[in-house]
Amino acid sequence: MSDTGTPNKARRTRGGRAGRQAKAAEETAPIVPYITRNIPYYEVLDDDGLSLIEKNAETILAEVGIEFRDDEEALQIWRDAGADVQGELVKFPRGMCRKLIQDSAPREFTQHARNPKRNIVVGGKNTVFVPAYGSPFVYDMDKGRRYATIEDFQNFVKLAYMSDSLHHSGGTICEPVDLPVNKRHFDMLYSHMKYSDKPFMGSVTAPERAQDSVDMCRILFGDNFVDAETGKQKTCLISLINANSPMTFDDTMLGAAKVYARNNQACIVTPFILAGAMSPVTVAGTAAQSLAEAMAGMAFIQLVQPGAPVVMGSFASSISMQSGAPTFGTPEPALVLYIMAALARRLGVPFRSGGGFCGGKIPDAQVAGEAANTLIPTTMAGVNFALHTAGWQEGGLVMGYEKFIMDTDLAGMMCTMLKGVDLSENGQALDAIREVGPGNHFLGCEHTKANFKTAFYRSPIADNNSFEQWEADGSLTHEQRANALWKKMLENYQAPELDPATDAALQAYMTERKEAFPDSNIS
Amino acid sequence: MSDTGTPNKARRTRGGRAGRQAKAAEETAPIVPYITRNIPYYEVLDDDGLSLIEKNAETILAEVGIEFRDDEEALQIWRDAGADVQGELVKFPRGMCRKLIQDSAPREFTQHARNPKRNIVVGGKNTVFVPAYGSPFVYDMDKGRRYATIEDFQNFVKLAYMSDSLHHSGGTICEPVDLPVNKRHFDMLYSHMKYSDKPFMGSVTAPERAQDSVDMCRILFGDNFVDAETGKQKTCLISLINANSPMTFDDTMLGAAKVYARNNQACIVTPFILAGAMSPVTVAGTAAQSLAEAMAGMAFIQLVQPGAPVVMGSFASSISMQSGAPTFGTPEPALVLYIMAALARRLGVPFRSGGGFCGGKIPDAQVAGEAANTLIPTTMAGVNFALHTAGWQEGGLVMGYEKFIMDTDLAGMMCTMLKGVDLSENGQALDAIREVGPGNHFLGCEHTKANFKTAFYRSPIADNNSFEQWEADGSLTHEQRANALWKKMLENYQAPELDPATDAALQAYMTERKEAFPDSNIS
Repeated sequence: MSDTGTPNKARRTRGGRAGRQAKAAEETAPIVPYITRNIPYYEVLDDDGLSLIEKNAETILAEVGIEFRDDEEALQIWRDAGADVQGELVKFPRGMCRKLIQDSAPREFTQHARNPKRNIVVGGKNTVFVPAYGSPFVYDMDKGRRYATIEDFQNFVKLAYMSDSLHHSGGTICEPVDLPVNKRHFDMLYSHMKYSDKPFMGSVTAPERAQDSVDMCRILFGDNFVDAETGKQKTCLISLINANSPMTFDDTMLGAAKVYARNNQACIVTPFILAGAMSPVTVAGTAAQSLAEAMAGMAFIQLVQPGAPVVMGSFASSISMQSGAPTFGTPEPALVLYIMAALARRLGVPFRSGGGFCGGKIPDAQVAGEAANTLIPTTMAGVNFALHTAGWQEGGLVMGYEKFIMDTDLAGMMCTMLKGVDLSENGQALDAIREVGPGNHFLGCEHTKANFKTAFYRSPIADNNSFEQWEADGSLTHEQRANALWKKMLENYQAPELDPATDAALQAYMTERKEAFPDSNIS
Repeated sequence: MSDTGTPNKARRTRGGRAGRQAKAAEETAPIVPYITRNIPYYEVLDDDGLSLIEKNAETILAEVGIEFRDDEEALQIWRDAGADVQGELVKFPRGMCRKLIQDSAPREFTQHARNPKRNIVVGGKNTVFVPAYGSPFVYDMDKGRRYATIEDFQNFVKLAYMSDSLHHSGGTICEPVDLPVNKRHFDMLYSHMKYSDKPFMGSVTAPERAQDSVDMCRILFGDNFVDAETGKQKTCLISLINANSPMTFDDTMLGAAKVYARNNQACIVTPFILAGAMSPVTVAGTAAQSLAEAMAGMAFIQLVQPGAPVVMGSFASSISMQSGAPTFGTPEPALVLYIMAALARRLGVPFRSGGGFCGGKIPDAQVAGEAANTLIPTTMAGVNFALHTAGWQEGGLVMGYEKFIMDTDLAGMMCTMLKGVDLSENGQALDAIREVGPGNHFLGCEHTKANFKTAFYRSPIADNNSFEQWEADGSLTHEQRANALWKKMLENYQAPELDPATDAALQAYMTERKEAFPDSNIS
């Protein structure tokens, strides 16, 4: 295993000279809070193709409409704005949603972290890699597949904190099912605040839980929560507002969105689509429907609070037309992803999609291939907020420890890709070629000696030794090497400092709020 | 496991109604001999960046030079052409190689197969996926890692023949080490001719073996070997002429290249580079050197035989700067690949690179991830001849049976990607969205019923069932499912028809030629 690479905090315990050197290097290594791409976007459709999808999205908004369910306030907002509201179905004059978004939604925005060096800029040429979200189960090689607990949740917060290729702590990394449903959001939020100093996501399972998320941020950020100049709350949370595709938003999501928008917190509006079930079986149809749903949601948020930060989301995979099972890492969703990223750029809002999707049950070749089939398009398309980058397993039902490590490795490679090609004189390396000449080798030349430390991405888990050496090392699988690494990382974890008074205030708030109502596992 | 997908000839033995239907579908399914892309290329550098690399390549050709070793004829050819020849070192006036290539090398050409439906067009927007090449070992889950034999070789020819996502039978798929080195090329060529009707590659290990390859094609193609109109030999072989990087060609490769060029057979001129050893540790330096070497080789072939088909090749990976071991599937080689593909387009010649590279020892998550990290850039960059697409394992030392199946699956996905987005009315699917409306599902709608059979790529080995179903099916790994599939395919293999007289003539030729000299395992 390499002594550098993505999850490099694991170096900490190495003793002796090498250990001290590694520690010194680490302490001085600057934090890279997000990646700004230095390579072009990849787009699969030209302007005419993209215009066609946009036209079809307007047709869907104007002629089919979007339902806003069980939320009279939302319907009144749309009536006031001039939409055609019939029952819960809202139809929008062509161009209305697009104009609402373009009139006030920011093209990019900063999400603040409690460590300001970790602030991220969401949008533009920036990419942020984020852990997976929402699984009820976890998996590791030692204990197998099981329900997630708050300890698992905290473990993943710690691993994400230690992973240089992840820029965010995520949100509901896994569901801590050992805690009551109606109170676990406190413990999840507290874990992000306590065990990491990277930015994180808010609760969306009820409007009051969204408000709890904001209130806990107010405590965590203290005087920094409000911008001194503008008097506005800073954006300290980014949260996941999913559409119930096809063409539906429910009161839970709308309620959370309203809380966040009115507090200047960011919302990612994401049609959640398994094509064939929640959208047509075609790429162009799925893209048009996704755009329509996302625009309706983002326009609604701009009506609630003009200028509130929004991100256009797209979660689009397919189902097996034989079994109905969701499939991941296949080519059609990659095509949808490329289209949606281009549409978000044309609309002028940040974009969320992709990640390390897979359908496999264990961290084997299926899982690794499917994850690469998604994370590479995620990177090439220009996704700004890459939720689900690390840990996603079994169609999102499972957060995998070994998969998490494999994914951070892949994300590290993608960070290198995004940096692009060094065309400086040193990068051109003509002197090296002149020095070495025909038939010789570059191993010892001056240019190699000057550059070898940073020349190539180094995987912390890939084995590139000879077959004989690999056998002598125990014939380990990739999964086994990943297993060893996450355990070593957790052993070496050191929490970022948190002001004790802030910590105490957070705990007091949680205790008080938890006592306000009885435990419930209903919702 | 799905009953369709990439290696779909395996359907053959299924009995009953489903079996008959599948067979009927198969018999009428048209052969797709190669993929013509309907999506844009991805390029990492803009015109200025590419021009800089081209300028540096000219500097290398003019100031550093290329050695042509142990081949006086080659040196004389260069002298006659006006190059500066000092000993074995040839220096080229700026622009000379580029002009020689652009004056006579075809932008694209047809490689003929004995089944004309399998003819491929190499170049332009076309991609051909080809098995891996050159490993001394094979691996399968049952028998482990071992030296390859002619039986293994034939097995892979059969598997490639049965794989719809592979368009080519390849060349030295693995080294049949149970046969004498100086005669095994006969048996390899015969295996391609007998067990497949896809196009294949010629021998390059000695000029006389190149001539044997041409002579066997003359027998195989019979009257079709010569174009009736032009009187020229048709291009029936494509062969691998590697540079001994840095900046060296040897007499073996030059000798084979001369034979092929004079017989109008295609040569792929490929600098073989592990950056850090055979080139500088930088992307831009490696690209400039690769271009210089490839241009010198292709220009030489145009001098030998103006108009002879050539392909610009690039094999560029890196080494671990800790251990010196080759690494595969990392980001820097992908950047080189994107640059080289763009340079080949600017030069106006077909391009070969990429494949399913990996360094891992067994078909686990490392191997699958690394392969995807190479084959996706291969596809997006616009590689025309994707050698090493299927089977590559352990840095090319091993041809893997399970890896072969996984790779054909991935190549199948890439074929779907290359087809791009259907923007027809059916593809736009607005009627489906109108029919279904908000809150409902698309499973039973008319559009889904009309399209579900071809809607999504179907992997023959991925498991997308529920965890419970997967457990009930034996908790198989991806590797185990791939293992079952290649065995099933070999059981069901049926050889394409070969005219008995042609077969007898091929065998007689081989027998006579083999008797002409004693067995040797020297070279």
